[in-house]
Amino acid sequence: MEYPSKLVENAVTEISRLPGIGKKSALRLVLHILKQDISFSTELSESIIQLRNNIKYCKNCHCISDDVVCNICGNPKRDHRIVCVVEDTNDVLAIENTNQYFGLYHILGGVISPMDGVGPSELNIDSLVKRLSKGEVEEIILALSPTMEGDTTAFYLSKKIISFGVQMSTIARGIPIGGELEYADEVTLGRSIQTRIAYK
Amino acid sequence: MEYPSKLVENAVTEISRLPGIGKKSALRLVLHILKQDISFSTELSESIIQLRNNIKYCKNCHCISDDVVCNICGNPKRDHRIVCVVEDTNDVLAIENTNQYFGLYHILGGVISPMDGVGPSELNIDSLVKRLSKGEVEEIILALSPTMEGDTTAFYLSKKIISFGVQMSTIARGIPIGGELEYADEVTLGRSIQTRIAYK
Repeated sequence: MEYPSKLVENAVTEISRLPGIGKKSALRLVLHILKQDISFSTELSESIIQLRNNIKYCKNCHCISDDVVCNICGNPKRDHRIVCVVEDTNDVLAIENTNQYFGLYHILGGVISPMDGVGPSELNIDSLVKRLSKGEVEEIILALSPTMEGDTTAFYLSKKIISFGVQMSTIARGIPIGGELEYADEVTLGRSIQTRIAYK
Repeated sequence: MEYPSKLVENAVTEISRLPGIGKKSALRLVLHILKQDISFSTELSESIIQLRNNIKYCKNCHCISDDVVCNICGNPKRDHRIVCVVEDTNDVLAIENTNQYFGLYHILGGVISPMDGVGPSELNIDSLVKRLSKGEVEEIILALSPTMEGDTTAFYLSKKIISFGVQMSTIARGIPIGGELEYADEVTLGRSIQTRIAYK
């Protein structure tokens, strides 16, 4: 496609580098931006620049934060004895949205994946060990995705954690609420039978 | 939803003001931007700022352009005797993509719409009349959307244009290529019979 202007072409190229936005959507956004007040584009760009330049990561849990310590770690009402280990910030937001968890988090920043060249040293594992060595944490919840990489990482972590004598758990795997048995995959269904829970 | 940082919240708010991007998609984009190199966000913001601040509009046809005259109006190979009147830049790009038109364009910048407070004086109609008064143009193609507003605008324009004695045409309405008769609406089908063309 030919663009009417180099500026448009450049903006389309940059915007279409974002995930899930193709050249056509990018062009639509560009034409929209051109129709708006100049303050619209200024504020948009400024918010992106500010975000990337000034974001901090919590020194405890490595979550995105405005300060040295994030809102969650800095909240005295949260249970500081439980730490939920997750892969990424998205997972923290997803769990927070459930309103069912009131402990702290620890973000690994990925999972062990030899295929992608990610080993344990690339992840925030040392800082997790350091947190545990302080002796305040009583339970670790491993909330990693049930993939090959997630399971490998959980196994690696469990070996590291076991020496601290803290309780260890993993989030339940099973049939999703509202899911139908006949459409569940065999592995999930099989495991949901193995790990069946008492009916109350 | 609570965000882990004011910077994230601000960026999500700004990005979700773009059409077709909700808060959830915006958050996904924000987390993606945070994972990229700093040059990613700098180049993205810069391209948006440059776009909005430096874009020009062609003095002839009002199309988006890098210069005073756009690529199309400045191209001597194009037929300067035919002008296609469209609502917006999107329409120019759509028609250019067909590779079936080699004349010039005139962008109205909207259509007459009393409901939205858009009258003829808000549109680039005076400049169209000025172009016609130079006597170079021999044919005007009205390529407006077949809506109430588009038809009103076309009617208004035809009254203005008629005095210049140029040929006037409108793009064909009918059943789209690949469309099935039984699913076409009655108005389109009815008009496609009224305006039937000789079978060659």
